[in-house]
Amino acid sequence: MEKWLRSLKTKTPQEGFELAITLAQKGVQYTQPSEKIRKKLRPKYARNARSLISASQVVAINFQTIAAANHYWEKNDDDLSQFLF
Amino acid sequence: MEKWLRSLKTKTPQEGFELAITLAQKGVQYTQPSEKIRKKLRPKYARNARSLISASQVVAINFQTIAAANHYWEKNDDDLSQFLF
Amino acid sequence: MEKWLRSLKTKTPQEGFELAITLAQKGVQYTQPSEKIRKKLRPKYARNARSLISASQVVAINFQTIAAANHYWEKNDDDLSQFLF
Amino acid sequence: MEKWLRSLKTKTPQEGFELAITLAQKGVQYTQPSEKIRKKLRPKYARNARSLISASQVVAINFQTIAAANHYWEKNDDDLSQFLF
Amino acid sequence: MEKWLRSLKTKTPQEGFELAITLAQKGVQYTQPSEKIRKKLRPKYARNARSLISASQVVAINFQTIAAANHYWEKNDDDLSQFLF
Amino acid sequence: MEKWLRSLKTKTPQEGFELAITLAQKGVQYTQPSEKIRKKLRPKYARNARSLISASQVVAINFQTIAAANHYWEKNDDDLSQFLF
Repeated sequence: MEKWLRSLKTKTPQEGFELAITLAQKGVQYTQPSEKIRKKLRPKYARNARSLISASQVVAINFQTIAAANHYWEKNDDDLSQFLF
Repeated sequence: MEKWLRSLKTKTPQEGFELAITLAQKGVQYTQPSEKIRKKLRPKYARNARSLISASQVVAINFQTIAAANHYWEKNDDDLSQFLF
Repeated sequence: MEKWLRSLKTKTPQEGFELAITLAQKGVQYTQPSEKIRKKLRPKYARNARSLISASQVVAINFQTIAAANHYWEKNDDDLSQFLF
Repeated sequence: MEKWLRSLKTKTPQEGFELAITLAQKGVQYTQPSEKIRKKLRPKYARNARSLISASQVVAINFQTIAAANHYWEKNDDDLSQFLF
Repeated sequence: MEKWLRSLKTKTPQEGFELAITLAQKGVQYTQPSEKIRKKLRPKYARNARSLISASQVVAINFQTIAAANHYWEKNDDDLSQFLF
Repeated sequence: MEKWLRSLKTKTPQEGFELAITLAQKGVQYTQPSEKIRKKLRPKYARNARSLISASQVVAINFQTIAAANHYWEKNDDDLSQFLF
């Protein structure tokens, strides 16, 4: 598969959340590589409340990982580094 | 998508919990961007016990992230910093 | 919504577990604010084994957060602080 | 409810796992306090593979909490403390 | 129950993964102690894709615990300890 | 079973994500060792939206473990080590 994930670092929490969505989608794509089949499934599950909640759950788990990788986007860390380096 | 998440920091645990609910909803919105369809699904799943429990689970996972980002709202940290800086 | 969560700190692990149950219930209440509807759903899901296990799972996730916030109720920390301060 | 959880500390990983099972059961009991109803549900879900896997998942989540609370039962920590104190 | 879990430490990540599988199975066994019933359920759920994915999820959660307990099998730690002790 | 997992370390986040997929698959394989049966199940679940989302969830959980094992692929750590050693 082509390069699609170079870093877990993002500039903002929102970009981190959007990366979490990408990871959730990639988890599906690796299991079902056919774009044609995935597109066929989409309209159905996107109108199913429980599928949408499950999707949101996968996003939440991936967001945990990304938030930790970005030290929860704490600006204090950066400020301190000004003094340390 | 517009800016909707600027920080994971909240003043209180309750605001953190409410942000966790927002994250859970956003996970759904990114998957199903149509507000019209989401509104149609809402009455049904909001009367389904298992869907409500699943929604609460997504909130719980997001709350883990937000609580960690806020150092569990420990006041002691702030007090100590008075002495350190 | 009124103030219902002021702190993640509890005196004992058991109170922490009970707070985890409150968080799980609040996750449901924010999604379905109508007490009337929730009360109607209750007898049904409280007699459904899989719903009960799912509820226990949400409690377990929230308990992780609360246990971390309380440093797993380790008394040693407090004892040490006697020497440090 | 009576006192049933005094500490997350256990002597061994196995006792920790057994405490995780207790926590999973308590999550169910708080949601369905009637022992009579729970006993009626038991034979059914204990013969349902997916319910058993779900139960094992709740145990796994609780075991994460308990294992962290016990520093993963690392003996090295104790040994070191002999030198530090 | 007999002693079956003495330590979360394993020599390799693969042994850790295999211990995670044991923990997942034990979570089932504590809930359904009858080997006879479990064996009856096995052929059915082992041919059900969603049950298999759920089982893999329980393994994943247990593997998180075991990996943390083994400091993710980082050899660097051991090497450093040569210099420290 | 043959050696298939020697380390949780990967060079890039993407390789880490792909290892997470391997772990998710291995969780299934240990539960259902027959390749013949797994292949029979595959076409069905790979066209089922909820199964695909569940699979993505297992990947997300395993990716948390692998990301932590790789310190979230933070290059800063390596750079610092140049000065420390």
